[in-house]
Amino acid sequence: MSMLESQDLDVKDISFINSIKSIAIIGPSKKREFFFLKNHAEYFKGSIYAVHPTVDEISNFDKQNIFPSLEEIPGNVDFAFIAVPPSQILNVMDECVQKKVKLVTVFTSEFSDSGTEEGSGLEKELVRRAQNKVRILGPNGMGLFYPKAGIAWRPKFPTTPGNIGFIAQSGGICNIAIYGAQNLGINFSKVFSFGNGADLDFVDLLYFFSRDPETDIILCYLEGIKKGRNHDLRKVLEQNKKPIVVLKGGRSKTGSIAAKTHTASISGDNRIWEALFKQYNIIEVDTLEQLLYTACLIDYYGLFELDNLAVFSISGGYGVILVDLIEKAGFNVAPFSPEIQDKLESKFSMPGTSAKNPLDLAALFFFPNTVYEIIDLALSDENIDGLVLNMPSFYLSAVFRVRDDRSFESNMIESLCLGRKHHKPLIPIIQRTNRPEDRRRISKKLREKKVPVFGDPLEFLPLLPKISNYKRKSKD
Amino acid sequence: MSMLESQDLDVKDISFINSIKSIAIIGPSKKREFFFLKNHAEYFKGSIYAVHPTVDEISNFDKQNIFPSLEEIPGNVDFAFIAVPPSQILNVMDECVQKKVKLVTVFTSEFSDSGTEEGSGLEKELVRRAQNKVRILGPNGMGLFYPKAGIAWRPKFPTTPGNIGFIAQSGGICNIAIYGAQNLGINFSKVFSFGNGADLDFVDLLYFFSRDPETDIILCYLEGIKKGRNHDLRKVLEQNKKPIVVLKGGRSKTGSIAAKTHTASISGDNRIWEALFKQYNIIEVDTLEQLLYTACLIDYYGLFELDNLAVFSISGGYGVILVDLIEKAGFNVAPFSPEIQDKLESKFSMPGTSAKNPLDLAALFFFPNTVYEIIDLALSDENIDGLVLNMPSFYLSAVFRVRDDRSFESNMIESLCLGRKHHKPLIPIIQRTNRPEDRRRISKKLREKKVPVFGDPLEFLPLLPKISNYKRKSKD
Repeated sequence: MSMLESQDLDVKDISFINSIKSIAIIGPSKKREFFFLKNHAEYFKGSIYAVHPTVDEISNFDKQNIFPSLEEIPGNVDFAFIAVPPSQILNVMDECVQKKVKLVTVFTSEFSDSGTEEGSGLEKELVRRAQNKVRILGPNGMGLFYPKAGIAWRPKFPTTPGNIGFIAQSGGICNIAIYGAQNLGINFSKVFSFGNGADLDFVDLLYFFSRDPETDIILCYLEGIKKGRNHDLRKVLEQNKKPIVVLKGGRSKTGSIAAKTHTASISGDNRIWEALFKQYNIIEVDTLEQLLYTACLIDYYGLFELDNLAVFSISGGYGVILVDLIEKAGFNVAPFSPEIQDKLESKFSMPGTSAKNPLDLAALFFFPNTVYEIIDLALSDENIDGLVLNMPSFYLSAVFRVRDDRSFESNMIESLCLGRKHHKPLIPIIQRTNRPEDRRRISKKLREKKVPVFGDPLEFLPLLPKISNYKRKSKD
Repeated sequence: MSMLESQDLDVKDISFINSIKSIAIIGPSKKREFFFLKNHAEYFKGSIYAVHPTVDEISNFDKQNIFPSLEEIPGNVDFAFIAVPPSQILNVMDECVQKKVKLVTVFTSEFSDSGTEEGSGLEKELVRRAQNKVRILGPNGMGLFYPKAGIAWRPKFPTTPGNIGFIAQSGGICNIAIYGAQNLGINFSKVFSFGNGADLDFVDLLYFFSRDPETDIILCYLEGIKKGRNHDLRKVLEQNKKPIVVLKGGRSKTGSIAAKTHTASISGDNRIWEALFKQYNIIEVDTLEQLLYTACLIDYYGLFELDNLAVFSISGGYGVILVDLIEKAGFNVAPFSPEIQDKLESKFSMPGTSAKNPLDLAALFFFPNTVYEIIDLALSDENIDGLVLNMPSFYLSAVFRVRDDRSFESNMIESLCLGRKHHKPLIPIIQRTNRPEDRRRISKKLREKKVPVFGDPLEFLPLLPKISNYKRKSKD
């Protein structure tokens, strides 16, 4: 394995990851009931081995695949997950080099993250002993989640492969994202928790994702990069053509100190980071939740550029609130074009409604065919780039409606899919606290049709200008 | 009934609301399957009558209580819900005056909200015919929700009386709030949807709540107030001693136009409103969700004043993000006092953890007694005013933990109640997308113990400075 030095760029090649066929768990812990072994064994599709000097039986694991040392495994080992104590780590690394393991995760912590000279020394020695032959994720990291291959460090990680790549140092952040993505209806191509980043670091992994054919959207939680990597980071960003969404940790004074304790990261000057993000058209968000929601919006509707939005509500008051928030976010709730406005007026005969943008349907909402026609008209308007809609879930349950109609819900879901027909984002808000069981059923159906559902306008509204600006700048 | 003119204040007295014993629904609609009659009949605890000129049978409603006209009802009628067409409204009002009805809701719309001279004229005439003897909520409003008396305009409204009052013109806004509050674990004393506010308006209702012994926190959704009511509004605000939280609709250009269509409200100049809110120490929020969350925080923890917060996380990365957000919100994630810090250090022997603020528990989280001791120590620190905590729900399910322990969850819930012991807000974030079923179970248990659970730090962090500032200013 060699460094890639094309274009004056110093990054490590890990494209072999896409063809990992065999893995070993080195140091599975009896005390932890072989937690990491079992997790990796849960879905892995190739050969999986356990390496332990004394254990020769593990429940629900093929005895044949337990070996006292790495070298005794008859076949190749592409990837190893190492969870031995720090005192054994160097010997294990020597064995990995011997065995021609391509990639290891070092889960073990107390290296440079300990803040001691001893820890930092051990980390340096670990990298030296890998001889540039074994690539390392960690130490103090969870390593690789790769659903397509079935590589997963925790139980019940989702099995559906997706097109979203995620890079984080923190394993805990990854866990929240991975378990959460499943219920958000997005899927990962690969997730890297690279911990202290002694060998493979943020720049290497970003380079990998920017070239990875399985990845379309790149998410990052970043606390800082190593000294001397600025040049390479810029080179990687220059050649990248995929949307990158980043959550930068350690922007506050105390946060930057905490980041140092966490992964020995130097957060750096906020202004430098902000300038970098701006220069390379990187979408910056404030929370992990926003990171995932941004991925969801881009994954569901592609990249979009919004100026004028239509608003649709059943409550005139909620419509007013949405208009205020949308205009505050920098968009217009613009009038419909005269032709569309005329057609809309003909649908709004009922008192207490309004056919203007924002559309106030009031009790007109209980006529699903009319709702379909209204949304279809609004989105067919050339002036309108997307639609935000509030639909409290209690109106969807027959007992809460004035009229009963069994096909009401399925008709309504069809209307909410009209964004797909018009290639414009249609974003429904269904409050979470109202009839949560109805909400869950409907949200699930909508997610299956790739319609993102939010519970609160502030969850997605601040993200729309960020995505729009990205699209605008990426065309330049 | 007379105007109250104490202190040069022109407001209408509706304190009789707290003793409503009999109600009539005038014009129950057969076409709508007697929707509003059935809703009011669902929980009302006194006498309820239906008034309809031709209907003499309504399923599940006592035939004896159906009357062709109001005057034929033998007893008193304190409150009437009127849903007749506009053409009949004046006659019905005359009958109400005759019958000495104290309060009516006029649900009927197409008065001043229609934007026509005819509509405005009819509205004025309606008020004139009420002769200051019958107080009116509406027209174009849903009226009164009063769970203690069992008065409710929609099905399955919550039945538990609470201490939170809510004033909104929009009935739709009220519906979202009322159905939502139940699942948020807050309860209303009364909710008013006063529509066009032809008689009872925002100022009257605010005055009522400021004096109502059943109400401790006042929430408002406000689009504007009527010309000439500024003076009275200021007088009411001057004498008020309760926290008022307001969501002002129509702050944007298009929003103010929409507010006019919605309830004929004049939104007014944003700067004037902002100055007013500031002068009278009113908490202003941006969304309906924030309005309810603010009520929840004040209801659960009382009014609090924060400077220094402790952060507790299982993921070091998530801790860093929280610190950034908290310091951005204007608080400090301050060091613990030396004595507490020493005691904390003794609990944090495990590698990969941090005993400093932000506390990074990592796998220490799986020892509930230690978690309890750590939170107890942190909150006992005089330097610390509250604690924000991230606890992804997947760590709470045995299958997702390294170790199993049946009392784990109940122990953890005990730890999360420690804010109550120390009289300091402890606010847990449990991400909604992670293991939603585990989250629901735990959130429900926590809500029962009056611990508010959020799913996203941005849901509550912007509210903490608002509540703190209110407390600070209210002491002046």
